[in-house]
Amino acid sequence: MPTFHEAQTSVIELAHFAASRGWLPATSGNLSVRVTDHPLQFAITRSGADKSRLRPEDVLLLDADMRVQGDGPYKPSAETTVHVALYQKFGCGSILHVHTVYNNLVSELYADQGFVEIRAHELVKALGHWEEDAVVRIPIVPNWADLPRLGSAVAEAARVDVPAVLVRAHGVYAWGDTPDDARRHLEAVEFLCEYVYKLDLVRLARGLGAV
Amino acid sequence: MPTFHEAQTSVIELAHFAASRGWLPATSGNLSVRVTDHPLQFAITRSGADKSRLRPEDVLLLDADMRVQGDGPYKPSAETTVHVALYQKFGCGSILHVHTVYNNLVSELYADQGFVEIRAHELVKALGHWEEDAVVRIPIVPNWADLPRLGSAVAEAARVDVPAVLVRAHGVYAWGDTPDDARRHLEAVEFLCEYVYKLDLVRLARGLGAV
Amino acid sequence: MPTFHEAQTSVIELAHFAASRGWLPATSGNLSVRVTDHPLQFAITRSGADKSRLRPEDVLLLDADMRVQGDGPYKPSAETTVHVALYQKFGCGSILHVHTVYNNLVSELYADQGFVEIRAHELVKALGHWEEDAVVRIPIVPNWADLPRLGSAVAEAARVDVPAVLVRAHGVYAWGDTPDDARRHLEAVEFLCEYVYKLDLVRLARGLGAV
Amino acid sequence: MPTFHEAQTSVIELAHFAASRGWLPATSGNLSVRVTDHPLQFAITRSGADKSRLRPEDVLLLDADMRVQGDGPYKPSAETTVHVALYQKFGCGSILHVHTVYNNLVSELYADQGFVEIRAHELVKALGHWEEDAVVRIPIVPNWADLPRLGSAVAEAARVDVPAVLVRAHGVYAWGDTPDDARRHLEAVEFLCEYVYKLDLVRLARGLGAV
Repeated sequence: MPTFHEAQTSVIELAHFAASRGWLPATSGNLSVRVTDHPLQFAITRSGADKSRLRPEDVLLLDADMRVQGDGPYKPSAETTVHVALYQKFGCGSILHVHTVYNNLVSELYADQGFVEIRAHELVKALGHWEEDAVVRIPIVPNWADLPRLGSAVAEAARVDVPAVLVRAHGVYAWGDTPDDARRHLEAVEFLCEYVYKLDLVRLARGLGAV
Repeated sequence: MPTFHEAQTSVIELAHFAASRGWLPATSGNLSVRVTDHPLQFAITRSGADKSRLRPEDVLLLDADMRVQGDGPYKPSAETTVHVALYQKFGCGSILHVHTVYNNLVSELYADQGFVEIRAHELVKALGHWEEDAVVRIPIVPNWADLPRLGSAVAEAARVDVPAVLVRAHGVYAWGDTPDDARRHLEAVEFLCEYVYKLDLVRLARGLGAV
Repeated sequence: MPTFHEAQTSVIELAHFAASRGWLPATSGNLSVRVTDHPLQFAITRSGADKSRLRPEDVLLLDADMRVQGDGPYKPSAETTVHVALYQKFGCGSILHVHTVYNNLVSELYADQGFVEIRAHELVKALGHWEEDAVVRIPIVPNWADLPRLGSAVAEAARVDVPAVLVRAHGVYAWGDTPDDARRHLEAVEFLCEYVYKLDLVRLARGLGAV
Repeated sequence: MPTFHEAQTSVIELAHFAASRGWLPATSGNLSVRVTDHPLQFAITRSGADKSRLRPEDVLLLDADMRVQGDGPYKPSAETTVHVALYQKFGCGSILHVHTVYNNLVSELYADQGFVEIRAHELVKALGHWEEDAVVRIPIVPNWADLPRLGSAVAEAARVDVPAVLVRAHGVYAWGDTPDDARRHLEAVEFLCEYVYKLDLVRLARGLGAV
């Protein structure tokens, strides 16, 4: 497991990666890397930071009760509840939460069904599905204003074989054993959300209905 | 409040940010940061400057009558009237005016209604609305050729709780207490305009009508 | 007027600008800056160069008969005929020819009509139209395989008050008195092509017909 | 022909180019440059590498049986079978395999027909077709899970006059005599896929049917 300093550096690299793609608009989103397991401690971006200009002091060390370890003027993001719930369920090593237009569109368009299904697409391999004819369902949960409830909803909906959950008209949580795994999962989900939206659009125009 | 030199540096940073996203095409747009309140003075990009290559001398110090303070060959933009009107109404610290395809599309599509409504979307928090079920209406005004009239129209339409106004087939004005606040508001509005357009498109294709 | 060396530097800067936006795909496009008027000489990108990696030797000095002035292994682009025709008609200082998906789409969708009309849009100011209710028609010509014929067709269609011509399913020529003017005109045309396409799409989905 | 070291450098440059455009999401895709012909040896990206951060040791030297030449901890990608099949059929110098939303969309929308046809478009010149009224058909093959079968299918579908094959809901293979040729072909195919999708969409909205 990484030291806090190593986790802090990883969070800054992840922020640079996601911000350069425009996935953290208007200081939204938060990114974390686990430091210890028992008791749980993790490094996470503070509330309100502009991730395109993230400094080391913008990355906090928190415990499972969202208490900041060490000094400093900054507060954790209220959405940290979701990170805690996912770390406790999966014991994963890194969690990324971003807002994009395409994950927002898919989360809204498939909200009633509770999931979006990806079928017969190569990139499900990047989500860990190498079997032929793999079908992947990414869960979609309501955007509960109560953040402990949102944390529970994401963790309950999360499946062990699909490392991402969409929150309706809000964004996505993606995770992995390492920061690189989390990043790969997130890139795959973003690609697939753009693909699903654009394929639905042309299929509807053709009169075939959405995928 | 910042010195003129500090405000000038902020304007250059804001120009770098907005130009890197392509939000200031064809030397359009203008960006300002307030220096003093009584009497009003603010730093603003000059008319016709390419913001991707902005130099300190491209940022002018103006007063409420749009007179340039100090020497130099450059004129203020005629749209400075809108900045003056907004500073006088809100006492805000920074105003950003940019042109994007998505804010243009939304301003055109919802012009007759006079506003575009954002409902049940997470990013309204970035506009200052943290209440559950928040509904935000961003005003849309006609693109008056008479610029004092445009300034009045924007200032009259502007609501204290929504830090942005769309001008039809022209662009957006967004503001905030600080340059960072104005930038966060602008990023949120741009995200929401792209989202509204793309959601409308697929909903129309589904036969459901626009949002 | 610039020296050849200055014009060469301007061409390299223009190539950097246009390539960074993806407007010169697959070594396509060509960019020129006039050096002398009588007789006409201009600096222009050579045939087949990758503009994202342009070197000084990739910029040739040509005369009105497309003869290379000076030594070097490289040939001019066959499309240089269009540059000659435009320089001779307008005496302008710089010409930019790029290929983008949106200018291609608009050139195809409005080909039968022979022009695309821009009405009630702020960015026509960047094309030199500051009058209220300005209407700008950008001509569209067939993509003649015979390049002297293409040069004549572009120059004939070109209007003194609209500094751009679209070539069907091919690209755009935009020009100006200086490299900065040409660049501003090109940025405005590209913005407007994307806007026209996306507005047409949603208006068609609404059942209103294209603009 | 290049040395392995030169080919390795070319692969890293190609990876930088394609990753900067977002064409290698989630560690997908692979890029190769031939070193020798008889027996065949080529430099290729290893399995699972993030191409935006490619290091020299991520580029392997392989033979026609996909055996790694030299030491090192890394495995070749299973998709290397397709590279071998194309090198053996065409004797080309470089092969690029990338995943993009637009090549995925076109591969899905035209899968039943087995090809997508490009007609009356300037950029077919970048694919080597300079004749007037050129028509180019880019083949589309099923995404066989069995990778030797995929290699055979791509090589069988590949035409000597069209340097690219689409794999359904997976990606594209493009090749050329040199790395620059392969890159030019790939850029042209990506441009054309985006164009075909967006033109189909508006034509369907107009009620005209796809191209």
